[in-house]
Amino acid sequence: MEEEEVEGATTSETPPRASPKASPQLNRWSRARALLSGHRLDWSALRNKTTSSSPPSPASLSSSSMLDEKSPSISSEEHDRENDEEEPRTPRPGDGKAIYMVSDGTGSTAENSVNAALGQFEHCLVDRGCPVSTHLFSGVNNMDRLIEIIKQAAKEGAILLYTLADPSMADTAKQACKVWGVPSTDILRPTIEAIANHIGVAPSGIPRGAPGRKPLNEDYFKRIEAIDFTIKQDDGALPQNLNRAHIVLVGVSRTGKTPLSIYLAQKGYMVANVPIVMGVELPKALFDINQEKIFGLTINPVVLQTIRKARAKTLGFQGEMKSNYSNMEHVRAELNYANKIFAQNPVWPVIEVTGKAIEETAAVVVRIHHDRKKKCFIPRISKRY
Amino acid sequence: MEEEEVEGATTSETPPRASPKASPQLNRWSRARALLSGHRLDWSALRNKTTSSSPPSPASLSSSSMLDEKSPSISSEEHDRENDEEEPRTPRPGDGKAIYMVSDGTGSTAENSVNAALGQFEHCLVDRGCPVSTHLFSGVNNMDRLIEIIKQAAKEGAILLYTLADPSMADTAKQACKVWGVPSTDILRPTIEAIANHIGVAPSGIPRGAPGRKPLNEDYFKRIEAIDFTIKQDDGALPQNLNRAHIVLVGVSRTGKTPLSIYLAQKGYMVANVPIVMGVELPKALFDINQEKIFGLTINPVVLQTIRKARAKTLGFQGEMKSNYSNMEHVRAELNYANKIFAQNPVWPVIEVTGKAIEETAAVVVRIHHDRKKKCFIPRISKRY
Repeated sequence: MEEEEVEGATTSETPPRASPKASPQLNRWSRARALLSGHRLDWSALRNKTTSSSPPSPASLSSSSMLDEKSPSISSEEHDRENDEEEPRTPRPGDGKAIYMVSDGTGSTAENSVNAALGQFEHCLVDRGCPVSTHLFSGVNNMDRLIEIIKQAAKEGAILLYTLADPSMADTAKQACKVWGVPSTDILRPTIEAIANHIGVAPSGIPRGAPGRKPLNEDYFKRIEAIDFTIKQDDGALPQNLNRAHIVLVGVSRTGKTPLSIYLAQKGYMVANVPIVMGVELPKALFDINQEKIFGLTINPVVLQTIRKARAKTLGFQGEMKSNYSNMEHVRAELNYANKIFAQNPVWPVIEVTGKAIEETAAVVVRIHHDRKKKCFIPRISKRY
Repeated sequence: MEEEEVEGATTSETPPRASPKASPQLNRWSRARALLSGHRLDWSALRNKTTSSSPPSPASLSSSSMLDEKSPSISSEEHDRENDEEEPRTPRPGDGKAIYMVSDGTGSTAENSVNAALGQFEHCLVDRGCPVSTHLFSGVNNMDRLIEIIKQAAKEGAILLYTLADPSMADTAKQACKVWGVPSTDILRPTIEAIANHIGVAPSGIPRGAPGRKPLNEDYFKRIEAIDFTIKQDDGALPQNLNRAHIVLVGVSRTGKTPLSIYLAQKGYMVANVPIVMGVELPKALFDINQEKIFGLTINPVVLQTIRKARAKTLGFQGEMKSNYSNMEHVRAELNYANKIFAQNPVWPVIEVTGKAIEETAAVVVRIHHDRKKKCFIPRISKRY
C-alpha cells in the first residue's frame, strides 16, 4: 500500500513528494508544530525549505512563457518585488494548516470533496492534533483574482485545491502555483477527462455559473415543488396529501424526520413525515397509500434522550411536559410503541438512525426507493442525461 | 491546451489514452453510435478493441498477485469462464454511455463531482447529442460487491468513477478495472493525498459511514436547529424572531426565497424570509434588526411571469386572483415596488436570481455574509477544524 500512496501523490498536480511518513514530510510537520507553538520563523526562508519542489530558477520561470503571456502581472520580477516589499503574514497559531479551495463557480464541488477528504483525517482533527483551516474562494472568474489568491496562499503556506472549468484558468493556476511553490491539485480535471474520453466529446470549458445557460429546466421546478410540498407536509400536516408524496417517513419525535425530509426534498423527492406519538393514532390515510413509500426511523434510546433533553431546554419545557418528553422510561416506552407499529407493517423498511449523518440515512432511503421502483440486479440509482 | 488534456488524462487512473479528438476515441464513438442505432455487436470482441489498453495477458494477470490474494473470486480463470458462460447484455438504445459511480459511503461526493463534471458536457447533453446515464452504487463496503459491480460495468461498457476510503478496496477497484478493461478514475484520492502531504498525517482509510464515529457533534445540532428555525420562519411567519436569524431574505413571491432558505439552513444558517407584497407593509421588526443580515432578491419580470403562471396552475388560481398574480403589468409593478424598497435600504445587497441555480445564489449570499463578519482582504469563507 505504501507504494500505492506515493504513486497517488505523484499523479496529482502536486509537485512530486514523498509519502507522509518520509522524512521531508516529518520535517515539515515539526516545523509546523514549532510555528503553532508560537515561535516566529522567517517565513520566506522557511517556505523554500518547506515545499520540496525547489524554488523557481530564472530559467524555469522564463520557460513558462504561457503564464507570462496570459497574465503579465505575474512575471518573476513582480514576484521578487512582492517578496521584498511585503513582510509575509505569519499564520496565527491555532489556525492550523491552510487549505485554499478555489472555484470559478459556487465552489460546492471543491467544498464537498475537501470535506469528504477531511473525513480521512478525523482521527486527528477531532482532538485538533492536526489543526486545519479551510478557505473557500468562489466565483473566481478572472486571472487577476486567481493570481492574487495564489500569492496569498504562498504567504500563508497554504495548499491550493481548485475546480476551474476554463482550461486557461486551470493552466494558470497550475503554473502560478509552481512558480510560488504552492502545492496544488485540480480536483475535478481527472473526472472530466475520464468522462470526455468515455463519451468521445471534448469538455466545453465554460463554468457552470456562466450566463447563457438554460436557467429554468425541469429539474429546477421539480426541486422547488418538492421543497414546497415537503414544508407543508412537515410533522403530520395534511394527511389527505400523503398519497402525493414520493416518500413518507414515520418515527417518534427527534428521530430526525424533518431534516431528513428537507434533505430529500432538495434532491427532488416530495416527502411527508408523520410523527409517532404514544396514545395518538396514526392517520388512517397512511394505511391507504402505497405502503412501499413508507419508511420507519428508529434510534437508540440513550441517544434519543440526550437529543430530547437538548430540545426540551431550547423549547423551555418545564415540569411534567419536560420529564415526559425526555424521561428515560417514557423514551423507551415510546420507542417500544413505535417498534410494535413497525412490526405490524413489515413492508416498511426500518432504518436505525443512531450515529448516522442525515446524508447517510438519506442514501439508504433513496437506494431502497429506487430499488423498489426498478428491481435491479445490483442496487443502484440510475439517471439518464 | 491539447497537451494539457492528454497529460490530464494520463495522470488519472484511466489507462493512458489519446485525447477525445484522436482517432481511437473517434472509433469508440462511432462504434457506440452503431450500438445505439440498434446493431447488435459481438460485445466481448468489441470490448478488447474499445479499450485502448490491451487485454490482460496471462503474465500481467499473474503479476497482480495482490488482487488474487485479496479476492480469490477474480482470478483470470474465473474471468474467462464468466465470459464464456454468460452472454453479455447489450446496452439498451437511448440509455447512452454508462457512468458507474461507486462509493463505500453515501456516494454524495462521487455524485456531486460527476454532476459538476457533466456540466462540462451540457453543450451536447441538453439535446441528447451525447446521451449519458449515471448509476450510483453507494455503501459498497465489501470486495465481492465491488467485483460484481465492476463485472457489470464491463458488460455495459461503462466507466467506473469511485471514492473508496479503504486503500485495499481502492486498489482492488483499480486492478479489477484493469483486468476487465473498464476505464476507471479514483475521484477523491488526489485530494486526499494532497492534504496528507500538506498536513503530514496519513489518511485513516476508514469510510465516513463506518460505525464508531462520533455521531452527534456540534455541527449536527447546529444544522438541525437551523432547519427547525428556517421552516418555522418561512414566508414571513413570526417576525418577532427575525433578530435570531443569521440571514434574512426579502423579495416578491416566487423569487426563490423558500428553497434558498432551506438550502442555507442545511448548511447551518438560521434563515428567515419575508415576502414583499404590494400594498402590504413590511414588518417593523425587519428594520429593528442588524441590517447587514438582510438580502434582497430580484428577478427578470418575464422569467417571473413564467414561474408564476406555472405556480398559479398548480395552486388552481382562477379569475382575478390568477391575473393579478401572473399578469405582466402586476408583475412589473410589484418588482418596481420591491426595487423602491431596496433603494431605500442601501445596506441590503440585492441579488439578481434570474437564471441562477439555488446553489449559485446561496454562494453569493454566504460569501457576502462571511465578508461582512470577517472583513477579509480577499472575499473568502473560512472554517477551522
